[in-house]
Amino acid sequence: MKILTFGHKNPDTDTVTSALVMEDLQKALGKDIEAVRLGDLNGETEYALKHFNVNAPRVIERLHGEDVILVDHNEFQQSADGIEDANILMVVDHHRIANFETAGPLYYRAEPVGCTATILNKMYKEHGVEIKPEIAGLMVSAIISDSLLFKSPTCTDEDVKAAEELAAIANVDIQSYGLDMLKAGANTADKTAEELLNIDAKSFSMGEHEVRVAQVNTVDIDEVLSRQEELENAINAETAQEGYALFVLVVTDILNSNSKVLALGQQQAAVEKAFNVVLDKNTAVLEGVVSRKKQVVPQLTDVLS
Amino acid sequence: MKILTFGHKNPDTDTVTSALVMEDLQKALGKDIEAVRLGDLNGETEYALKHFNVNAPRVIERLHGEDVILVDHNEFQQSADGIEDANILMVVDHHRIANFETAGPLYYRAEPVGCTATILNKMYKEHGVEIKPEIAGLMVSAIISDSLLFKSPTCTDEDVKAAEELAAIANVDIQSYGLDMLKAGANTADKTAEELLNIDAKSFSMGEHEVRVAQVNTVDIDEVLSRQEELENAINAETAQEGYALFVLVVTDILNSNSKVLALGQQQAAVEKAFNVVLDKNTAVLEGVVSRKKQVVPQLTDVLS
Repeated sequence: MKILTFGHKNPDTDTVTSALVMEDLQKALGKDIEAVRLGDLNGETEYALKHFNVNAPRVIERLHGEDVILVDHNEFQQSADGIEDANILMVVDHHRIANFETAGPLYYRAEPVGCTATILNKMYKEHGVEIKPEIAGLMVSAIISDSLLFKSPTCTDEDVKAAEELAAIANVDIQSYGLDMLKAGANTADKTAEELLNIDAKSFSMGEHEVRVAQVNTVDIDEVLSRQEELENAINAETAQEGYALFVLVVTDILNSNSKVLALGQQQAAVEKAFNVVLDKNTAVLEGVVSRKKQVVPQLTDVLS
Repeated sequence: MKILTFGHKNPDTDTVTSALVMEDLQKALGKDIEAVRLGDLNGETEYALKHFNVNAPRVIERLHGEDVILVDHNEFQQSADGIEDANILMVVDHHRIANFETAGPLYYRAEPVGCTATILNKMYKEHGVEIKPEIAGLMVSAIISDSLLFKSPTCTDEDVKAAEELAAIANVDIQSYGLDMLKAGANTADKTAEELLNIDAKSFSMGEHEVRVAQVNTVDIDEVLSRQEELENAINAETAQEGYALFVLVVTDILNSNSKVLALGQQQAAVEKAFNVVLDKNTAVLEGVVSRKKQVVPQLTDVLS
C-alpha cells in the first residue's frame, strides 16, 4: 500500500514543501510514497513551487486507514481527518508534542529548530542521499518562510547553516529570493476576511479551552486592520460555529518584525495577561513578536492551562 | 540547573542503564546532568550493575519543575510524579507515544527497535563520543534484557548488530553473560506476591479503561502459578485501590519463549478476545508470547479502544 505523507491543515510553505521533500527522500530509499496536502496553497508557497518548477501535491479530504508519515505537525486536530485510524509510521517535526497518540512504536524525530526542512537536510546526509537542486530550493524556501528570513526567534544557527548549504545547491540568492517570496505571501488586499483568517491558522487545546491562532504576514499592518470590523464579523462567525474559547489574529509586519494582535472570545482576557498588554478596541501591539510557536502559543498556554 | 534523566517507574534494566548511559553521553557533551531512578532495582539490573561495577542511580520521589530528559518511556502515568510541570528537553524511546504532552518544542527521538540502548549507540556515533567498556556493558545488558537474548519479536537486526558491537567493547560473551543475567532476574521464589506484581508493571490508558500489565520472567511458570491464590489476592487488592479495569499478569518462560497469563478485573473478557483464548481459572497459555509491547498491549488496546 502506498504511504501518504503530508503536513498540517491550512498548509504553509514548510508543510507543503516538507511533504514533497519527504516523498523525494523516501523514494530514494525505495519506498512507495506520495506527498499530499490538506488545503489550498497560500501565495508564498505558490511562488516557491513555481520558482523551482515543482508541481503541488494533490489535495486529500480525509484518510481511510492508510500508512502515513507526518511532517511539520503532530497534533491530531491539525492533521488529516481520519488520522486516529491511520497507521503512523513516522513523524518529522519541530513543534511541541500534544494530542498525539499511536497504538504501536514508530519513528519520531523532533528537534527544537526553526524549520522541518533543517531536520530533513540532516536526514539526507545520514542516509547518504544527494539533494537535487529543485528539492534544495523547496527546502531553503521553507527555512526562509518559517524564520522570516532568519528574523524569527525560532531561528537557530542550524537553520541558517542549512539554508546557506541549500541555497548553494539550489543556486539562489537567499536575501533577494527570500524577500520576493515573503512579499508574494504578504498580499492581503485581494483576500476576503475569511480567507485572511485561514491563510495560516491552527487550533490548540489549552487546558480546557480550544483556541484558534491565525497569523497574517504583511508589509502594512494598518492596511490589514483598516478592515477590522469585517475581520471581527468573520472571527465571531467562525468562533460561534467552532466553539473557540478564544480567537487570536496575529498580524505580523515581516519587514519590521512586529505584530498587532486582534483578540476576541470569552477568554479574551488571557491575551492581556499572556502579553502584559491592555487591549484597545480588541487590539494591542506585540513588540518584537513574529513567532506563533515561540512567542504566542506557550504564553497563552501558560495562562489558560 | 542540573538536568535529571530517568526511565519509567518499576525500572527494568533498559530503563536504569539508559539513564546512566544518557548521563554519560550528555556529560561528554558538556551538560550538567544526573541519572536517577523511580523505584527499586530488580535482580537482573542489580546483576548487570554489579558485573560492570557501576553504581545505581539514586531514587527520586517526585519532580519539582526540573529540566528533564526521559529515556525508555514517554507516557506520563509511567513517568515521575510531577512530570506535568517539568521542562522536558529530550526523549529517547522505543515505545508507542501516548499521554505525552509538552508546552514547547523539544528533541524527541523514537525508533521502532527493541531497546533504547540501540538508539543511544547511534547517538554516541553521531556525536563522535567513544563508548567506555562499562557503559558498553550496561548497553549490551539492556539489549539482552529487552530482547530476551534476541528471542523477542521486538528484536530487530539493528539490536543484534548493536549488541555485538557493544559486547566486543565490554569484552563479554553475549550468550553466557546474558543467560546468567536473565536468570538473576528470574528468581521468583524469594519474593512476595506484591513484589512479583511490581517487578515489571506498567499502566496503560486503553480507550476509557486503565489497564495494568505486569510481567514476570521465570525459568519455571508452574512454580510462579503454584502461588495463584496469593497472586490473585494481591491483584484484587491493587485493582481495588487503583481502579484498574483490567489487571493482566504475564508470566514468561525465558528459556522456552512462552507465557501464561493471569487476568482479573471487570474487563477480563477483553483478554479472551485479544488473544483468542478461553480463560480457565483466570489463566491461559499464550503460545510464543514474550513481548508486552508487541504481543500484549496492542492486542488489548484494539479490543478496549
